[in-house]
Amino acid sequence: MFGDISGMMGKLKEAQQKVEETKKRLDTVLIDEAVANGNVKVTVTANREIKAISIDESLLEDKEELEDYLIVALNKALKRAGEINEQELALAAKSGMPNIPGMDLFK
Amino acid sequence: MFGDISGMMGKLKEAQQKVEETKKRLDTVLIDEAVANGNVKVTVTANREIKAISIDESLLEDKEELEDYLIVALNKALKRAGEINEQELALAAKSGMPNIPGMDLFK
Repeated sequence: MFGDISGMMGKLKEAQQKVEETKKRLDTVLIDEAVANGNVKVTVTANREIKAISIDESLLEDKEELEDYLIVALNKALKRAGEINEQELALAAKSGMPNIPGMDLFK
Repeated sequence: MFGDISGMMGKLKEAQQKVEETKKRLDTVLIDEAVANGNVKVTVTANREIKAISIDESLLEDKEELEDYLIVALNKALKRAGEINEQELALAAKSGMPNIPGMDLFK
């Protein structure tokens, strides 16, 4: 099972490199979200960085409403970003790793 | 080195459980950030969920400025949240794991 330790180490290094590459690539994956009939639009990366927020003039009259819409839109976008991020990094981390039944540290 | 496989599996399961517990706990760790002399204040959890956004009335007159301030404040808060998140999860994942020099999948 662990006969080839150096081979296993090589595969771990490889997986590590793939994780780093994937992290960089996720900066270029953009997620758009809109609420309030498009009056609040946000764009975030799959690394959960906010790239753009667009607020319609009509929402500037009610501060509380605007704050609530922003929270909803951003959390929706960040949730999707987090899901994509975890999936992609798990895939990269798993590449070349042995499959141990019942074990899934990267889920 | 791998003499006690079942002992190692037990430690992996333990680490996995600690990761899950830590994820839950990070929902209660709050990070505050303020920009524009406190005219934009945000609160996020260490799991990168936005809990509060507070905008001063004075910023409602300039939409573009407001959007920019929001992006800066939120990204500052999310960056700190991400750092805390990674540190805490790495610590949990490492608990009981063997230390292999040159290998750090959880950094």
